[in-house]
Amino acid sequence: MDGLLGDAMPLIEPRILKGFRDYLPEVMVPRVRLLRRIAEVFERFGFEPLDTPSIEYAEILLGKLGPEAEKLFYRFQDNGGRDVALRYELTISLARVVAQYKDVPRPFKRYQMGPVWRAESPARGRFREFWQCDVDVVGSHSLLADAECLAIDHAVMQACGVRNYRIRFNNRKLFRGLQEKLGLQDSRAMDAVMRSVDKFDKIGEAGVKAELQGLLGHGGFTEAGLAIVLDFLALGARELRLDERVAALHAFVGGAEAGARGCAELAEVLAYARKQGVPDSVLHIDPTIVRGLDYYTGTVFETFLTDVPGFGSVMSGGRYDGLIGLFSGEDVPAVGISVGIDRLISGLEELKLLPPARSSAQALVALFNAEITPYALEVAGALRTGGINTEVWLEPGAKLQKQLKYASRKGIPLVLIAGPDEAAARRVTIKDMAKGSQEVVALEHAAAAARTALAGS
Amino acid sequence: MDGLLGDAMPLIEPRILKGFRDYLPEVMVPRVRLLRRIAEVFERFGFEPLDTPSIEYAEILLGKLGPEAEKLFYRFQDNGGRDVALRYELTISLARVVAQYKDVPRPFKRYQMGPVWRAESPARGRFREFWQCDVDVVGSHSLLADAECLAIDHAVMQACGVRNYRIRFNNRKLFRGLQEKLGLQDSRAMDAVMRSVDKFDKIGEAGVKAELQGLLGHGGFTEAGLAIVLDFLALGARELRLDERVAALHAFVGGAEAGARGCAELAEVLAYARKQGVPDSVLHIDPTIVRGLDYYTGTVFETFLTDVPGFGSVMSGGRYDGLIGLFSGEDVPAVGISVGIDRLISGLEELKLLPPARSSAQALVALFNAEITPYALEVAGALRTGGINTEVWLEPGAKLQKQLKYASRKGIPLVLIAGPDEAAARRVTIKDMAKGSQEVVALEHAAAAARTALAGS
Repeated sequence: MDGLLGDAMPLIEPRILKGFRDYLPEVMVPRVRLLRRIAEVFERFGFEPLDTPSIEYAEILLGKLGPEAEKLFYRFQDNGGRDVALRYELTISLARVVAQYKDVPRPFKRYQMGPVWRAESPARGRFREFWQCDVDVVGSHSLLADAECLAIDHAVMQACGVRNYRIRFNNRKLFRGLQEKLGLQDSRAMDAVMRSVDKFDKIGEAGVKAELQGLLGHGGFTEAGLAIVLDFLALGARELRLDERVAALHAFVGGAEAGARGCAELAEVLAYARKQGVPDSVLHIDPTIVRGLDYYTGTVFETFLTDVPGFGSVMSGGRYDGLIGLFSGEDVPAVGISVGIDRLISGLEELKLLPPARSSAQALVALFNAEITPYALEVAGALRTGGINTEVWLEPGAKLQKQLKYASRKGIPLVLIAGPDEAAARRVTIKDMAKGSQEVVALEHAAAAARTALAGS
Repeated sequence: MDGLLGDAMPLIEPRILKGFRDYLPEVMVPRVRLLRRIAEVFERFGFEPLDTPSIEYAEILLGKLGPEAEKLFYRFQDNGGRDVALRYELTISLARVVAQYKDVPRPFKRYQMGPVWRAESPARGRFREFWQCDVDVVGSHSLLADAECLAIDHAVMQACGVRNYRIRFNNRKLFRGLQEKLGLQDSRAMDAVMRSVDKFDKIGEAGVKAELQGLLGHGGFTEAGLAIVLDFLALGARELRLDERVAALHAFVGGAEAGARGCAELAEVLAYARKQGVPDSVLHIDPTIVRGLDYYTGTVFETFLTDVPGFGSVMSGGRYDGLIGLFSGEDVPAVGISVGIDRLISGLEELKLLPPARSSAQALVALFNAEITPYALEVAGALRTGGINTEVWLEPGAKLQKQLKYASRKGIPLVLIAGPDEAAARRVTIKDMAKGSQEVVALEHAAAAARTALAGS
């Protein structure tokens, strides 16, 4: 900002925009750790990071979206008069990348983590800036890729330490089979049916039934059809093992070609997921899973923390074979997952699976007095070399009590103290803040002793 | 994007805005690793992550900046008619956070890594969106904090594997001493002198001299003064050890109180930096270092890769005791570092210190034929459990040649292959792509064998 400072001016009130957030360290420390852990899972499955601009031409970001959607964008003219916008999600930029760089090897297996912006009304759990964590396989029709998504879903849950969760999955082709069984020629009528089914989790079976009754007589939707839809949905709740449920669904919609194909895909994805170590106990085939009307074409899935009922899905995705070709005109199949990182963090908090907010510093080296400073710096250096995140108290002359209070407020587990005698003997006292205990060790053993104390605290 | 897809439309040309970048995996993989390593250094010194909104009220982000600066902002009205902007840098938001959350413990030692946006004309190495990596100590006047910045600078260079680099540091109070020695009452005249000195690296001593000659007669700047400034700057180039240079500078500007104070600070920071293990060989006290006219008040420093001459500073910072109080009206001292991540990456590339662009996947499990798929998934699972980033080929029926070519293009070092006989015997062939060698191992030893092969490749 060289040469740009203007004159003194009155104080400006410190505040942020509604729907935006500051992540202070106590929130940010576990968040960064979790994001790293998730990225590690993605990389373990051979996915590579991608990043794309936050600002793009509006025509790119809006893609095929209609005027309703445009209102949700942060869209403006840049200083060169270009019509630009902040990205609303990450998938459209992935589609652009795939079309723009022809030599990217396919299948393109990438993950991307970063903020997106939506000009929505802020509400509890709904923000104008939030992070998306997406992992996608682009360029493969293989159902191995769909199964890999379920395996990654399972691996992320394991990496988060979640014991009880359910991956509920379905295949959109079943709804095409259902449409044929219902004899609905009018695809708008079927869309209306699916829109109601999509609300199953929120409004329950009775709610869906009420909505469907409102559709009677539209586009050929009849009382008999309504009963068929409810029977179809009820197949999700019956006490059946996974293979039995596939068979039951096949018996129901397999008469139509699309329905039979959907059931075969469910069976194949299930078989591959099992071979990748996903246990039956976390899988549930669920005909009520729709995931909206747009772009999904086959496998769809959502993930629920069973110990936090009514919480919503923390990770979801599916196959969308039409979207990625938007900029290239090619047929580019794709399947992916999006981790709902904010909701996942809230869920882990409720489950007490996020480590308590605690400093990323593991030790504070106190300053006994100003003269001791050089020795304190040596102590800190020894700890850091030993791999321990170490802060040094910066103000010579502060009372030890104040320094201990600072460590306690920040949740730093160890405080190292040396007075003149200890410095002369090249020793240091390690105080364990939680236990209140302390021990005196030689400087050359300080890092090892601190490590032991941290492991036990 | 549920319910928002409009009708089919003509193809949109895939392109990005000038000054913005896609980071494809071959660029992103080393970038992510480097950012992680730098964050680890920051945490090793007890700093904690912070994140703040990308969009804030324009009046906050503009702070005390004048109308010249405003043109460089992405500034617009949001849908609610609020005057907002994208953040231009990270420090102003840090100042806001410190004023807004009174209970953040001080000193507040935070780091922040994230994109900033500048509506500048794009040029080689100058982008409209780029990342800043800042680490700052807020709330301490202690020179221990200044020295800690030098120690972190040194530690980042070490973590990057750089052997030859120079941290050139100075203290802005020396210029106050110089001003007194020059007898310049008019601080605008001194500002003009400093603005010329600030260009020393770009235009050399002769260039600075020519500029200073243009200032003669303005605000009391004389020929004698010009000679004094040149003598002062020449103190940076003399063959002197660090303590000798401090003494020489003291002899030159120590007659003025501010000059004496600046030299004492240099000596103290140097002593603390040495105690933190920063070797004399990488330190250089340099009176030509100014770092612009704004906000720096004491220690200033820049970091140069000595094996890449003329490259500019890759990491810089200093003490700025006036800025953080902008929103609170308090006196809040601060000192920090900013890593020029783009320039650092370019420098490491020139020094061949960035690992060659290579996939984050370490192994590809090939598909011999469709029947072998379940066994291939088992092999992949065994490798992943063993901590190896593993991709599975997704298309049954592809020729092995094609699969090997894919691994080679992506730079995946190992390919694991099993035919029906190997599957029956629960064995697998590990092919080392670089060496061209291969070995057959039992499935239960596959991860260990792969690890050995990776260590040797």
